[in-house]
Amino acid sequence: MKVIAGPASHELGEKIANLLDLEVAPLVFKRLPDGESYVRLDESVKNEDIVIVQTTCPPQDTRLVQLALIADAARRHGAEKITAVVPYLAYARQDKVFLKGEAVSILTVARMIEAAGIEGLMTVNVHSEEVLPSFPFPARTVSAVPLLAEYLKSKGFKNAFALAPDDGALWLAEEAKQVLGGGCGYLEKHRDFHTGQITTREKDLDVKGKTVIIFDDIISTGGTVVAATEILKKLGAEKIFAAYAHPLLIGDAEERILKSGVEEIVGTDSVPSQVSKVSLAPLLCEELAE
Amino acid sequence: MKVIAGPASHELGEKIANLLDLEVAPLVFKRLPDGESYVRLDESVKNEDIVIVQTTCPPQDTRLVQLALIADAARRHGAEKITAVVPYLAYARQDKVFLKGEAVSILTVARMIEAAGIEGLMTVNVHSEEVLPSFPFPARTVSAVPLLAEYLKSKGFKNAFALAPDDGALWLAEEAKQVLGGGCGYLEKHRDFHTGQITTREKDLDVKGKTVIIFDDIISTGGTVVAATEILKKLGAEKIFAAYAHPLLIGDAEERILKSGVEEIVGTDSVPSQVSKVSLAPLLCEELAE
Repeated sequence: MKVIAGPASHELGEKIANLLDLEVAPLVFKRLPDGESYVRLDESVKNEDIVIVQTTCPPQDTRLVQLALIADAARRHGAEKITAVVPYLAYARQDKVFLKGEAVSILTVARMIEAAGIEGLMTVNVHSEEVLPSFPFPARTVSAVPLLAEYLKSKGFKNAFALAPDDGALWLAEEAKQVLGGGCGYLEKHRDFHTGQITTREKDLDVKGKTVIIFDDIISTGGTVVAATEILKKLGAEKIFAAYAHPLLIGDAEERILKSGVEEIVGTDSVPSQVSKVSLAPLLCEELAE
Repeated sequence: MKVIAGPASHELGEKIANLLDLEVAPLVFKRLPDGESYVRLDESVKNEDIVIVQTTCPPQDTRLVQLALIADAARRHGAEKITAVVPYLAYARQDKVFLKGEAVSILTVARMIEAAGIEGLMTVNVHSEEVLPSFPFPARTVSAVPLLAEYLKSKGFKNAFALAPDDGALWLAEEAKQVLGGGCGYLEKHRDFHTGQITTREKDLDVKGKTVIIFDDIISTGGTVVAATEILKKLGAEKIFAAYAHPLLIGDAEERILKSGVEEIVGTDSVPSQVSKVSLAPLLCEELAE
């Protein structure tokens, strides 16, 4: 088995290979002047099982095409089974037809990468697991929350209150509670599918005087966490932190979140950023070794 | 049959529908804050044959994914045969393994869009036709050169000399000669696959005192046309023009080309730009009606 570290997850790919004591298959990667990606495997992958590590955070489409091109190169040059490790899986939120006439983008993406040669996928905190059995290949998701919670615990956050910004994320707060040992709870969130507008309500939360850590899968523009922080402040929370598997932090999200009263944001290297304080490498290695 | 005018070829799609007297299926299209594309068909396509018009000039990957998402939406909501009209087909230059270990990107792309639901493709002046029979669906290419030559003829360029910047493009110059009535010829070009460096040599060209029009499929950064213009000036060409199916014109290419001595660049709307003086709509309609 060899690891190919895609251009979007070069560091994480190398870490995974090191931890598993696997060889990294060297990849020649270029962006051509017109923006096209070019890939070439610089060593034989013939008869090797291949793990391609490539996240698909923005620019999502470019990273998806790069993943596909790497898979094509590997397959074309004799690789055996090709598994993709895609820590952040783009388009995962469009996982069903919400309004008539829509695409189910994540299934389109899954079929596209299958067509390129990918035969299995591992991702992290996919938005909704229910879609994975509809993928055209075995796909599984693992949760980065225990890892995030362990990191926070090691930083002195034992017994902090774990908050989910909506009921769909409650299980993440519950996972965190297992590690941190404090309480957990959630806010009620409603998203208008036409306007994208999000409204949030409190839900009998006892957070007065407590340190609260908001746990969620993705932090995008930060609207949800800013709304949650307003409520937590009203309810008398003492300090507020935020922990995410996928710190997309679009535009000035980080600044807005910190300004809203969140003291620190912690994310993983699924989306390489300055808040990526926790590496997914040990978690992914454990799963790959299974 | 209905036409879906993709976001990258909205105007061309509408023109094609008008010329063929077909209905345009309305498409709700958004870019989400994180950069993902969102598509929704706002009217039924059930039991309809669908033509999706969507070019894939830069940003190529985003436009490819948009094409795939539109195809998925159409297929999912009951469309019959889905044909893609992709005037500029991205990744078409990586149409074989030039160096061991490479992907054949254009075949990866073809398989990806097939997986999304596309069952046939029409493109314009694809870089090399030989690759099309390897596509997983019927694919054909038409030449925009007669249309470009007719446009130039109508602007007074009768009897201009048609020059191909390399022997692979000679047939384009020959097509143009059929319309313009002047001579034609080509330069010898060599591309180093490792460095991308291009060198060009003259090849017994009688262009002294003549108006020369350089014909080629793609104009990207303009290196080839600038080199050709240098040679043409040395050989005493009086005036030099350039006509392209796909005026990508990356970065400051247009400025550099005009500065090198080309008087005017003419392109088609395969790549919407300020030099897109010739619409492909009549040509594509003729082919679609066949």
